[in-house]
Order: sequence, then C-alpha cells, then structure tokens
Amino acid sequence: MGTPGAEPPGAEEEVRAANAAFYAAFEACDLDVMAEVWERSDRVVVTHPGWPTLRGWQKVFGSWEAIFRNTSFIQFVLTDEQVVVCGATAWVTLDENILQAQGSPDEGGAADTAELSGSRVAATNVFVHDGARWRLVLHHGSPVGV
Amino acid sequence: MGTPGAEPPGAEEEVRAANAAFYAAFEACDLDVMAEVWERSDRVVVTHPGWPTLRGWQKVFGSWEAIFRNTSFIQFVLTDEQVVVCGATAWVTLDENILQAQGSPDEGGAADTAELSGSRVAATNVFVHDGARWRLVLHHGSPVGV
Repeated sequence: MGTPGAEPPGAEEEVRAANAAFYAAFEACDLDVMAEVWERSDRVVVTHPGWPTLRGWQKVFGSWEAIFRNTSFIQFVLTDEQVVVCGATAWVTLDENILQAQGSPDEGGAADTAELSGSRVAATNVFVHDGARWRLVLHHGSPVGV
Repeated sequence: MGTPGAEPPGAEEEVRAANAAFYAAFEACDLDVMAEVWERSDRVVVTHPGWPTLRGWQKVFGSWEAIFRNTSFIQFVLTDEQVVVCGATAWVTLDENILQAQGSPDEGGAADTAELSGSRVAATNVFVHDGARWRLVLHHGSPVGV
C-alpha cells in the first residue's frame, strides 16, 4: 500500500525487512542487534503491552535489557501485516501471536522445560529512513482481548 | 521535536491542533466531526484499547459509531504529549487520562447521574499532510497497567 507514486520502488520491501529484523532481534533476545534496529535518539518511543510509554533511547534500551533479562524463550508468528510508506517515513501494523517462557535465560528456563504461555498483541511500528536504511523510531504493542 | 530543518515552520503546532481536534470530536461523540479528522482511505487503521486492529475507513468509522453509541460521557486530560514531524508525516504520543460513563447518550446516562470510571490509555496518533491539512491515519490506544 502507500501513497501511489510517492515512494522509491522497493521501499515497502525494505520496510518489511527492517520490521522482520526487529522481531528477529526480539526472538534472539540480542541487545546489540536490537540496538542496530533502532534510531538512537531522543525522539524514539516504546509502549510495551500494559506498560507506560517510555521516551528516548536510554529508556527504550533499558526496557529491552529488562525484557531480555526476564525472557528465556519468545517466538512470534506475525499475521495481518500492513505496510504504509509515506516519503521517508513508514509504519507497519500487525498482530504478534506470541509463545513465550518467562524467567532468566541463565536459570535454565529453556523452552523445552519452562511453562509456555500464548498471547496476542496488536503492534504499530514506525520507521524513518536515515538516508542509508530504515530505523525504528516507535514501537507500540497492546494486549488484544483484555 | 522532529528532524531539525526538515519541516515547515509551524508544522508542529498544526499537528498539535489536528490532534486536539481528534480528542474534541471524541469528547463530543460527534461522528461528522470525527469523520473530518480522518483520512478516509483504505490505509487508515485503528486499535482501540483491548480491541483487535481494524483497517480501512469503513471499519474505522464503524468503530466510532459503536463507541459513541455506548458512551454517555467521556472526558480526556492529555498528558506527556510529544509531537514528531517528519516531512509530510507526523506522530503524536501521549497519555489519555479518561473519565467516562458508559451507556447510550439517549438513556439519560448523563455525567451527573451515571457512574463515572477512570482509566489511563497510552496512545499513538499518526497524521499525514494531504496538501491542505493534517489527517489522522492511525490511532492506537492501549490500556496502561493491565
């Protein structure tokens, strides 16, 4: 989708790839890879499901540290993904169908032994092109069915 | 805030005004005014707190019909509002501090008699400039503290 004629060819595919990289970093619980996905600036913002909104790269990064520290396993099946590109900005909306196990990865809470729980989160991800690539500037996830 | 030098002067104030118009329409439960706030296209999307994501103007409009039909009173105090303008796209993040009464407006459920409840919602609103004015293309609200 997107405004016809306003975007360079392939922009939508680039945004899909950037969005996939975000979820790959999340599944891997890899802070370095996650940091590469984001624009590291004051204007970035994250709202995790049920959390208050956190602003600025320092707080956003801190939230990923906390989440990864308490996640031994997480898997996403992404459905109903829609990409809109509008110039140098793009947003992706989708459903995150999540299977996860809580607890520290160091505590032996492997996926095969820990208790798995499922949930669905409606997500909005906003990306900005920095001249070289698309960077995540906003992630908003909210529980569906509460 | 916003990317320095990339936006026309006054764009941030215009976005703040468009965002305020959205909440004014919501408080008034006025469908005609709400319809004026939005871009009426296939790419618009809304995620109400706890709801699945709805796509396209027809479904978005239907959701406002349903919400207004079941709201006799709603008042917003908006806090922690942040506006980012990026070319012809802008996004606003804020907290909606909500006081509301459910029930049909026609059932005499006025604010002075109906039971009021309070809640907080973290919201993301994305606007696109259509050449004349800013139009809402995405509203995502999620309950805080669930």
